[in-house]
Amino acid sequence: MRHDHIISAKQLSRADIEEVLDHAAAIAADPGAYADRHADTLLGMLFFEPSTRTKMSFTTAMKRLGGDIVDMGSVESSSVKKGESLADTVRVVEGYADALVLRHPMEGSAKMASEFVDVPLVNAGDGAGQHPTQTLLDLYTIRENAGFDDLTIGIMGDLKYGRTVHSLAHALTNVDARQHFVSPESLQLPRSVRYDLHQEGAEVREHTELDEILPELDVLYVTRIQRERFPDESEYREVAGQYQIDSETLAAAKDDLTVMHPLPRVDEIAHDVDDTDHAKYFQQAHNGVPVRMALLDLMLGGEPE
Amino acid sequence: MRHDHIISAKQLSRADIEEVLDHAAAIAADPGAYADRHADTLLGMLFFEPSTRTKMSFTTAMKRLGGDIVDMGSVESSSVKKGESLADTVRVVEGYADALVLRHPMEGSAKMASEFVDVPLVNAGDGAGQHPTQTLLDLYTIRENAGFDDLTIGIMGDLKYGRTVHSLAHALTNVDARQHFVSPESLQLPRSVRYDLHQEGAEVREHTELDEILPELDVLYVTRIQRERFPDESEYREVAGQYQIDSETLAAAKDDLTVMHPLPRVDEIAHDVDDTDHAKYFQQAHNGVPVRMALLDLMLGGEPE
Amino acid sequence: MRHDHIISAKQLSRADIEEVLDHAAAIAADPGAYADRHADTLLGMLFFEPSTRTKMSFTTAMKRLGGDIVDMGSVESSSVKKGESLADTVRVVEGYADALVLRHPMEGSAKMASEFVDVPLVNAGDGAGQHPTQTLLDLYTIRENAGFDDLTIGIMGDLKYGRTVHSLAHALTNVDARQHFVSPESLQLPRSVRYDLHQEGAEVREHTELDEILPELDVLYVTRIQRERFPDESEYREVAGQYQIDSETLAAAKDDLTVMHPLPRVDEIAHDVDDTDHAKYFQQAHNGVPVRMALLDLMLGGEPE
Repeated sequence: MRHDHIISAKQLSRADIEEVLDHAAAIAADPGAYADRHADTLLGMLFFEPSTRTKMSFTTAMKRLGGDIVDMGSVESSSVKKGESLADTVRVVEGYADALVLRHPMEGSAKMASEFVDVPLVNAGDGAGQHPTQTLLDLYTIRENAGFDDLTIGIMGDLKYGRTVHSLAHALTNVDARQHFVSPESLQLPRSVRYDLHQEGAEVREHTELDEILPELDVLYVTRIQRERFPDESEYREVAGQYQIDSETLAAAKDDLTVMHPLPRVDEIAHDVDDTDHAKYFQQAHNGVPVRMALLDLMLGGEPE
Repeated sequence: MRHDHIISAKQLSRADIEEVLDHAAAIAADPGAYADRHADTLLGMLFFEPSTRTKMSFTTAMKRLGGDIVDMGSVESSSVKKGESLADTVRVVEGYADALVLRHPMEGSAKMASEFVDVPLVNAGDGAGQHPTQTLLDLYTIRENAGFDDLTIGIMGDLKYGRTVHSLAHALTNVDARQHFVSPESLQLPRSVRYDLHQEGAEVREHTELDEILPELDVLYVTRIQRERFPDESEYREVAGQYQIDSETLAAAKDDLTVMHPLPRVDEIAHDVDDTDHAKYFQQAHNGVPVRMALLDLMLGGEPE
Repeated sequence: MRHDHIISAKQLSRADIEEVLDHAAAIAADPGAYADRHADTLLGMLFFEPSTRTKMSFTTAMKRLGGDIVDMGSVESSSVKKGESLADTVRVVEGYADALVLRHPMEGSAKMASEFVDVPLVNAGDGAGQHPTQTLLDLYTIRENAGFDDLTIGIMGDLKYGRTVHSLAHALTNVDARQHFVSPESLQLPRSVRYDLHQEGAEVREHTELDEILPELDVLYVTRIQRERFPDESEYREVAGQYQIDSETLAAAKDDLTVMHPLPRVDEIAHDVDDTDHAKYFQQAHNGVPVRMALLDLMLGGEPE
C-alpha cells in the first residue's frame, strides 16, 4: 500500500483493502510482536468534534504499537476559538507529531488539511463525508465472520444520512457482495449513492420490510434511526419500531447470521440478542484496534509480515 | 488476594487489606523496581463525573508501573450523550484496555458494570456508594503514622453524607480501633451506618465537641462540612466554624497526633497546621500512588515481594 | 544553569539563555539520542486556562525525552471548582509528578506556587505576567535565522497588552539588538516597559508606520491586534488593516528577512507570505519542542553535551 494520507475508503483498491485486513489479522493473532514497533512515534490527535469510540480506538492502536499520542484536546480549549484556520492548526501540529488523525465537522476538511502537511494524515470522519477506518473495521469483521465469497448482506436503518452505510456499500462493490437495503421510505439511500452503486455494477435491492430477505442474509448491518429525522415523536416511534430486532426476529435467520452495528445503539437491537452467537457488534468495535494498528503501521513504514 | 473486581472496601478481609498495604509499602520503598512491571498494559479510564485527584492518582500509578491509560474523556464528549447504556460502554472499552477504572454518579453502577466485563474493574466512586481505593490509602496512612494496634481515631465533620467516612469507619472495625465521631447534630452518622458498626462489634462514640476527646486521639480525620447542607449561610457559618481546627486547637492534642483530610479542604484546617508535624493530609494524597500501584499490580497478576 | 524553577525570562542571564539554546540545537540535531533520556519521568500539567499550543508542545517535549505526562485536565473537571487553593493543588500534584508545568490566569501565580513545591516548576504563562519558554523559543528562532550579532528587529502589532512582546523585548537587551516597535498610537508599549528597556540600555525606537524601517530589519515579529481592544468594528478594521503584511509589503524588505508570529494568526500575515522564504512562524512553533526538551532536560538534571 502506498498512500501518504488515508482520506476516503474510495481511494483504496481491493488489493489495498486486503493488505490492511491481512496485516490486521496478523497483528490480532500475535499482538505482542508489535508492542514496541513504533516506540518513538507520536500520533497527533485533532478532534474538532466529540468522538469517544474512534478516539479511544486510535489511541489504543498507537499505544499498542509502542507509541504515544499528543492530543489537541477539545475545541473549546483550543486556538481554533481564537479564529485560527484548520490549515494553520495542522501545520503547527505536524511539528509535534509523526502522523495525524483528524476528525472535523466539515465535509472535505481532511482532504484539504492533508495538502498542507508532510506527515501522514488519517481522516477519522469529516462531517457527512468519509470515515475510512470505520469502513475497514466493518470489512474486517465481515471477512472474519462471513467471508467475502458469495456474500449476501442486509443493511438496515437510516440509509439516507448514514455516512457509515454509504462508505461500506461502496467498499462492498469491490467484493461483489449482494446488497439489500432495508429502511422506511423516508430514509432510503440517496439517489446519488444508488446511482454510484449501479455505475460500479453493484447488485443492489431495496426493501421496506426486513422479513422479505432476512433468511437469505449472511450479515445484517443495523444502524440507528435518529429521533431528530422525524417531525413528531409518535411518527418516529411507529417507524423506528419496525426496524428493531430481537432474538425472536432472528429465529427466521440463518444460524450463522452475523449481526453488526457501528454503535452506539439505543434500542435498534434488543439486549436479548447480545447473548446469541449472532451478536458481533462488540467484537466489531474491538476490531477497530488491530485494523487501526495495521493501517498506522503500514503508513509509518512497517512491512506486513 | 483473589478478587476479579474491586467494588467495595467491604469485600476486603483484614488479610486482603494487609496484603495490599504491605505491597504498597514495598513499592514505596523501591518504586524503581516496579517501573517496567506492566509495560504493555493499558488502563481504561471511565470517569462519568469529574475527579481530578483520583484520576491523576490512578493515571500516575499505572504509568509508574510502566503502563499507560486510555481515557474516555468527559461525558460531554462521549457516546453516553447519544443514549448509550453503561453496560454497552464498558463492553466496548474492555476491547481497548487490560483493566478498567470506573467513576459514575449512580450508586451500584460499578457492581453492575463489573458483571459485563472480563477484565478487572476498580470502582473509583459510585455516587453515594463506595470508593475502596480512598479507604485503602486512608488505612495505609493511618498504619504508617499511628499503626493499627491500640488505635484511637476521631472522625470529624460531615458524617451524614460522607461516603469516605462510612467506608473508613467500616474498615476500621477490622483492626478494632476505638472510633469517636464528632459532628453537629444535624450531620451525625446515619442510623444505618451506626447500626452496622455496632453489629460488627465496633467501639463507637459520638460527640458534638472535639475537645471532649482530642487529647486521647492518635488520629484526627477531618472532613468538609458543605455549605449546601444548610438552609442559610449564617447557620452554616456558625456550625462549620465549630469544626475547624488550627495549630492552637491542636495544642491540646498528643504530640504525635496524625491529622488527615481526604482533600480538597476549604477552611476546615487552618494553614498554620500545614507546617506542623501533625499535618499528614498531603502525604495521605501522595499515598494514593503506591496504594493504587499495589492494587493494580495485584489485580494484573503481579506477586507481592 | 542552576534554577530550581523557571518563572520568568528575566531570571535568565545571557549565559543561561545561550546554554538552553545550545542544548536545544544539540537536541534538534540528533533527537534520537534523547529518546530515552527521561524514561521514568512524569511531568504534571496544570493548565488553569486553555492553551492548545503550549500544552501540546510541552507534552511533545516530555514524550520525546522518553517521559510522560499526568494531566489535571480542565478546571471545570477539577477540585478547584470545590474551592481548593492553588497552593493545595500544587502540593497534591507534586506527589504525582517529577516536575510541574503551570499555566494560570493570575499574574504572580507561578512564583507563588513554586514556593510550595520541591519539584521543578515551569511557568507556562501567568496571566499578564511571564511566559519564559515562549521567549526562549523566540530567541532560538531568531538566533537560528538571523543570529544575535548586529541584529535589527521590528516588533509590530499590539505592543500594549502583549505579554510575549514585553518578555521578548526585555530578553533582546541581553544581545544588544536594535529594537523598533511599530503599532497604532493606542497600542504602544506601556510606559513601564519602555522605561525598563531604557534603564537596561536598550536601543529602542517607536513607529506608527512599518515602511519607515522595514528595509533595515533582519527580523519582523508580528503580533495580533485584537478586535476587543477597539470600541467599534469599523475603527478596528481601519487600524488593524495598517498592520497587516502580505508578499507585496515584503518586497521592500531584505531578502533574508525573517518573519515571525507567536500564532495563532488571524489575518495579520496574508497566506501568500507562507510560501516565501521569509515565513518562519511555523518553524518557530515547531522550535518549541527542542527548546522545551532542552529546558526540561537541564531542570531534570541532564547535562548538555
